Amino acid sequence: MGDSKKRRRKEASGEELPFKKQLKADSAIMETLKQLSASSSSVGETLTVQELKLPFQCREVADLSLSSVQSNIESLILKIAHSILSGQGFSFEVPSRSAANQLYVPQLDRIVLKDKSSQRPFANISTVRKSAITARILQLIHQLCIKGIHVTKRDLFYTDVKLFQDQIQSDAVLDDVSCMLGCTRSSLNVVAAEKGVVVGRLIFSDNGDMIDCTKMGMGGKAIPPNIDRVGDMQSDALFILLVEKDAAYMRLAEDRFYNRFPCIIVTAKGQPDVSTRLFLRKMKTELKLPVLALVDSDPYGLKILSVYGCGSKNMSYDSANLTTPDIKWLGVRPSDLDKYKIPEQCRLPMTEQDIKTGKDLLEEDFVKKNPGWVEELTLMVKTKQKAEIQALSTFGFQYLSEVYLPLKLQQKDWL
Amino acid sequence: MGDSKKRRRKEASGEELPFKKQLKADSAIMETLKQLSASSSSVGETLTVQELKLPFQCREVADLSLSSVQSNIESLILKIAHSILSGQGFSFEVPSRSAANQLYVPQLDRIVLKDKSSQRPFANISTVRKSAITARILQLIHQLCIKGIHVTKRDLFYTDVKLFQDQIQSDAVLDDVSCMLGCTRSSLNVVAAEKGVVVGRLIFSDNGDMIDCTKMGMGGKAIPPNIDRVGDMQSDALFILLVEKDAAYMRLAEDRFYNRFPCIIVTAKGQPDVSTRLFLRKMKTELKLPVLALVDSDPYGLKILSVYGCGSKNMSYDSANLTTPDIKWLGVRPSDLDKYKIPEQCRLPMTEQDIKTGKDLLEEDFVKKNPGWVEELTLMVKTKQKAEIQALSTFGFQYLSEVYLPLKLQQKDWL
Repeated sequence: MGDSKKRRRKEASGEELPFKKQLKADSAIMETLKQLSASSSSVGETLTVQELKLPFQCREVADLSLSSVQSNIESLILKIAHSILSGQGFSFEVPSRSAANQLYVPQLDRIVLKDKSSQRPFANISTVRKSAITARILQLIHQLCIKGIHVTKRDLFYTDVKLFQDQIQSDAVLDDVSCMLGCTRSSLNVVAAEKGVVVGRLIFSDNGDMIDCTKMGMGGKAIPPNIDRVGDMQSDALFILLVEKDAAYMRLAEDRFYNRFPCIIVTAKGQPDVSTRLFLRKMKTELKLPVLALVDSDPYGLKILSVYGCGSKNMSYDSANLTTPDIKWLGVRPSDLDKYKIPEQCRLPMTEQDIKTGKDLLEEDFVKKNPGWVEELTLMVKTKQKAEIQALSTFGFQYLSEVYLPLKLQQKDWL
Repeated sequence: MGDSKKRRRKEASGEELPFKKQLKADSAIMETLKQLSASSSSVGETLTVQELKLPFQCREVADLSLSSVQSNIESLILKIAHSILSGQGFSFEVPSRSAANQLYVPQLDRIVLKDKSSQRPFANISTVRKSAITARILQLIHQLCIKGIHVTKRDLFYTDVKLFQDQIQSDAVLDDVSCMLGCTRSSLNVVAAEKGVVVGRLIFSDNGDMIDCTKMGMGGKAIPPNIDRVGDMQSDALFILLVEKDAAYMRLAEDRFYNRFPCIIVTAKGQPDVSTRLFLRKMKTELKLPVLALVDSDPYGLKILSVYGCGSKNMSYDSANLTTPDIKWLGVRPSDLDKYKIPEQCRLPMTEQDIKTGKDLLEEDFVKKNPGWVEELTLMVKTKQKAEIQALSTFGFQYLSEVYLPLKLQQKDWL
């Protein structure tokens, strides 16, 4: 390879890369980043639901220790036994997770669950199955607490296929049980499949092993599925770069972008999974670093950003633990397409479905509260054009790491 | 968590786990594994196409250095320039990758490409576009060689969307170019997205960083996309456990199965990707360890096993580098369903498509050469039942790591 480097010619295209001339020295860009980082760490603690004094009650869950989860289950079952012995039969009180019971709270910048709940009596033909499933899930979680092991939702389903019939049913009751016990799903020791990877200026412990993410080559470190065994985070990074796609992540990892501008690079390779969301939140909370997001310029890019930022509706009861507040939209933004002169053939026409999704997003509170985002999304829907992060490769494979991102950082061009 | 362990009661189910009584001491099982490992490392080098003296010519590619790839491209283009200057126009000679040109060679135990090739002249309306694309891909690969960087197929597509129109077109020509230059796709520095993870008794270097896979917690190490930067493999493992699914991988990683029976655990989380296939082959070749596969008991489980073992038809020109010979089918096998008394409700009926895929597999040479596999697959098609690895959770979440796998190893129950 040294050989091929010697043969490197003066690259004709090097000087002509659009906007490359606008780039200042890295040291100047670093100053910008230090300001960003300082402003991010000086921000006080995020508000809690209690401090807000909302006009309604909110249901939120917390991380509980295994032994607390175990006691909570035991108390619940004792109460039920008393109820049966006193001739009342039994019923579970289950918090409602329906859309009508969800609310976006601007002060918190996330979706929360209100306190409506419903009864799930055993002695009722319409709820007997669900209450049996609930009891079984409680029993299985109790076993997990005793053994101190983690399993996936799929494992849980397979312990009693005859009763659950379909994984959708055991999954839904699992979320119910989280709500009922007032704890996060990770506290139940039920974990999602791991998908995310992390690389860059971060050291942390995974199940007792110390991991140095600057020494993880190009592949990076797989993000562990069980956040409760992650700890001791240390970093000299100035920001976290959240990347939607694998390909962009690889470019940045190979170019060791984190050594040019100290940062931590993380991706869930598409849709954010629970493990990556928990990991991102933990980094943000413990290291107090600003988070900059690099996503495709399409409605799904923004949607992914919103799941990291405000949570998914399905798990709104756990939004306090799963969301990372104040994520900045760095790129690729609809206005970048013209600004960076992305050629027409690298832009794709939006489908009807894309446009509908875009318009729906414009109605969402978490988009509306950020005028910059509204403006960008309106532009996208108007031009009916989308583009992937990879579209930047049209100016050369390393345009992303060598020009686009440094210039974005230099110009503080995030929303 | 220590707390919860203290509260652990004598587990009633522990003694009743099916087949647990048949388990011998771990030391006895280790003896079995040492024999397996010894027999695997004493096997001589695999045959090459040259040694076989086949009745036809075979086209195979090799790992070439970046500078060799660069010279090969330059010679090819020089030849074309001469052809144009002498008034002949130009044409690429492109090896055929069609099914008719592929063959399964039992002695090699993999699919190879025969030497048929076709002309792709520029001055012909039916091939002008493809020859233009070929020239452009050659130029882009040449750039990658000069810069010494890796990109994805998607990046490659985006450098000239106008010409390629569709990623399928640039991907197909990329494979053509591999064949034409006689080198592997990884030698072209075009990598696939990374998907696989590895954990256990393995130390290797990734892009210069030393990675100890016993110290990767539960998450494991992401398998690097660029195999040419992987090296220095060391291991005291007795075998490699190739796992189809994420959930089973997690169970084994959390239980640190590799410390009970020294092994390396690897998964591509479903369909095998090129990076994981290359990584598995490298482990097998350098460490001379036997490979045992744990896949779902369905036609796709066997198909996945066959892709690792014999290659995919699409990349048959590269089968020598991508395949890992002599993978043993450990489980979950169709005969295990009855043998391990998997309850009826944890078995799933096969769909029409499943049955068709199963029957098609029975016609494939790489299945036919292993009578044990034929027997198992015939049983599957006959009973019309399939099951996931997770079905074992029906006996408890840790049944896989505590009973099923140890017993399989003890009984040398692989095919």
